[in-house]
Amino acid sequence: MDTRAGSRLKVRGMTPEQILAAISGPARNEPDSGIVKAAMYGFTVPGVIALWSGEGNLPTPEAFARPAAEALLNGETFYTWQRGIPELRDALARYHTRHFGRSFDQENFFVTSGGMQAIQTIVQMIAGAGDEIVMPTPAWPNYAGTLRLHGVKPVDVPMGFANGRWTLDLDRLFDAVTPRTRAIAINSPSSPVGWTASRDELIAVRDFCRSRGLWILGDEVYGRFYYGDAGETRAPSFLDICEDEEQLLLANTFSKNWAMTGWRVGWLQAPRVLGPAIERIIQVNSSGTPAFLQRGCVAALDHGDGFIAEQVAMARARRDLAVTKLGGLPGLRLDVPKGAFYLFFGIEGMTDSDTTVRRLIDEAKVGFGPGGTFGPGGEGFLRICYLKDEAKLAEALDRFAGWMSKRA
Amino acid sequence: MDTRAGSRLKVRGMTPEQILAAISGPARNEPDSGIVKAAMYGFTVPGVIALWSGEGNLPTPEAFARPAAEALLNGETFYTWQRGIPELRDALARYHTRHFGRSFDQENFFVTSGGMQAIQTIVQMIAGAGDEIVMPTPAWPNYAGTLRLHGVKPVDVPMGFANGRWTLDLDRLFDAVTPRTRAIAINSPSSPVGWTASRDELIAVRDFCRSRGLWILGDEVYGRFYYGDAGETRAPSFLDICEDEEQLLLANTFSKNWAMTGWRVGWLQAPRVLGPAIERIIQVNSSGTPAFLQRGCVAALDHGDGFIAEQVAMARARRDLAVTKLGGLPGLRLDVPKGAFYLFFGIEGMTDSDTTVRRLIDEAKVGFGPGGTFGPGGEGFLRICYLKDEAKLAEALDRFAGWMSKRA
Repeated sequence: MDTRAGSRLKVRGMTPEQILAAISGPARNEPDSGIVKAAMYGFTVPGVIALWSGEGNLPTPEAFARPAAEALLNGETFYTWQRGIPELRDALARYHTRHFGRSFDQENFFVTSGGMQAIQTIVQMIAGAGDEIVMPTPAWPNYAGTLRLHGVKPVDVPMGFANGRWTLDLDRLFDAVTPRTRAIAINSPSSPVGWTASRDELIAVRDFCRSRGLWILGDEVYGRFYYGDAGETRAPSFLDICEDEEQLLLANTFSKNWAMTGWRVGWLQAPRVLGPAIERIIQVNSSGTPAFLQRGCVAALDHGDGFIAEQVAMARARRDLAVTKLGGLPGLRLDVPKGAFYLFFGIEGMTDSDTTVRRLIDEAKVGFGPGGTFGPGGEGFLRICYLKDEAKLAEALDRFAGWMSKRA
Repeated sequence: MDTRAGSRLKVRGMTPEQILAAISGPARNEPDSGIVKAAMYGFTVPGVIALWSGEGNLPTPEAFARPAAEALLNGETFYTWQRGIPELRDALARYHTRHFGRSFDQENFFVTSGGMQAIQTIVQMIAGAGDEIVMPTPAWPNYAGTLRLHGVKPVDVPMGFANGRWTLDLDRLFDAVTPRTRAIAINSPSSPVGWTASRDELIAVRDFCRSRGLWILGDEVYGRFYYGDAGETRAPSFLDICEDEEQLLLANTFSKNWAMTGWRVGWLQAPRVLGPAIERIIQVNSSGTPAFLQRGCVAALDHGDGFIAEQVAMARARRDLAVTKLGGLPGLRLDVPKGAFYLFFGIEGMTDSDTTVRRLIDEAKVGFGPGGTFGPGGEGFLRICYLKDEAKLAEALDRFAGWMSKRA
């Protein structure tokens, strides 16, 4: 701390500890994301190959960026519709109609400032202090984070890893429901483990939720990154088996499919009757998403199918490369993921993934994510994002293999 | 409702009413903003001159837009720092150092996706279900909205309007504090009434909050739109009288000063020890603000002083025009605002501002904001934003004057 700040604090007689004590418990005590901690540590070490974050290595294609840049320069810089510009909501309906083989209506789509804001909007709409939301883990830590911040209890149901497969025990999932449960959250294909629900599993969740009056919080952000064996271009979806007008809320994002992580634009799919409630929440969350950015999103939806196909083919090849490089290492265990773009692999005898991640940064110059940060069932594992430059990915995995052989 | 949706609903046996009943009470029962309702109604009526929204008539200057557009096209499209890019936080420190005559440190600045997100972040950080935040009214309805959404009780303290002046009774403000109070929110210059706290009033609030361990939630978004008589370029500020490291949280935005309402970029000024807590909240709110947009904000801060001076001069001239046109109308009462860019005027005998606003849209083709939406003390008044094209503003006020004379 510099002396200027020190002397000011002295004048006020208020220490950093006193200031911290004055914020709310949930804000003060929430753990930092292990991924963010790893990245912050890794940024200080030169030469580290970073595989911690959930994004590919390609910038946004110019075909999507140019319409946004032009709208910005043309002065489309005023407040806009809280639920998104009609052109983008219409393009979302077109995109879904094309990929799901049935018609969709723009009235069910709401533009958000990123997928995370879609999730937060859902939580704020359906749950309050003391409520519970049930979800399988390991899971993206932001879920538990946003729930706790709103006083909602995340009820974790660890998936099982056995015989090289991650599986979700649906009976266990349903048994976790209590009278305080408001929703079951299903992320499929999942980060970090790549588990992908079958159509039958989705139907079982749907039927259970219908019978209990629960919301389905669906996260199909990685739905297009699906490595089926029959040429499928997407994973099974709640959109295949649910009605538009029931208790289904889907969070999605432009980040992954169209290489737009830095744009912070996503969408929420919901029953149309919730429109005014969603708009009121968007009003106090973000007051809308920049209209000029939405112009680029229209281009991505209408002209991005080829880019997605290339990205997914690349992801599949990188997955195979990573599985080949890691699969043979002694002491390692992993499920070949059916979706998303992560490998989540266990290391025999490792009980502190945070420490291992820091050691890997220092000793092997590779940046992984610690499994423990993904909740119950995640400790003992590490996560990598493999949607990266091929040479860098190979080099990182070779470095890791070398480190593992020394460790053994 | 179309028949397709109708038949689906029938299959599911779930009506819109049932779906609505399944969301939480605060999400369902929150009133729509009267400003939004007026705008939605007004959009359906051709030829209406709209003065309801809080933004000027100028698009973002190209000097600010160009660096953002270029960064976007150059592929600065990846995830970025949760607290904002260092270059923008540094530019914020430079801007404040220049305008407040003392040094500021980038460690106290956090970039948010709009001023509203800065306010929501503050609420999520310092308050929880059952807590209270005290604030003068009439106030921007988003304050009460975001508080209620988080289970926090807004405690309104109506300002008084007498002898052509809005005044805040500080004793009444302080008397509203209870053991559940976490903060006093002060918006100065204020929307909608233009009330601007004197330095002595700010000191009184500061001393009271210090003595009670309360947070100050400061909103000085309109601080540069100040019409002092001594050539001041900004209103009195908590930054003049508070330490950086005390219980002061300031929400601000690029929207107003730099004509960037549609960008959705703002900032939060806070004690540096709160950095990790703020980053965690930003992570689950928005996961950061687009880095490429932040490049434009750097340009605005470093090269925007001339533009602000022009905008403020224009606002002062428009204020004077509006006061001249409205001031002489019988049955009207108003305070000549010392800051912000709104006129908030009372109409004798009017008790339903929502209805009056709809009538004005239909009968006079002018779009005003209903005073009732701004909380206790606001009914009986209407709000206009006067930072508009001069000819249109004059025409709108002439139409209104004509309507008033017929009414009388």
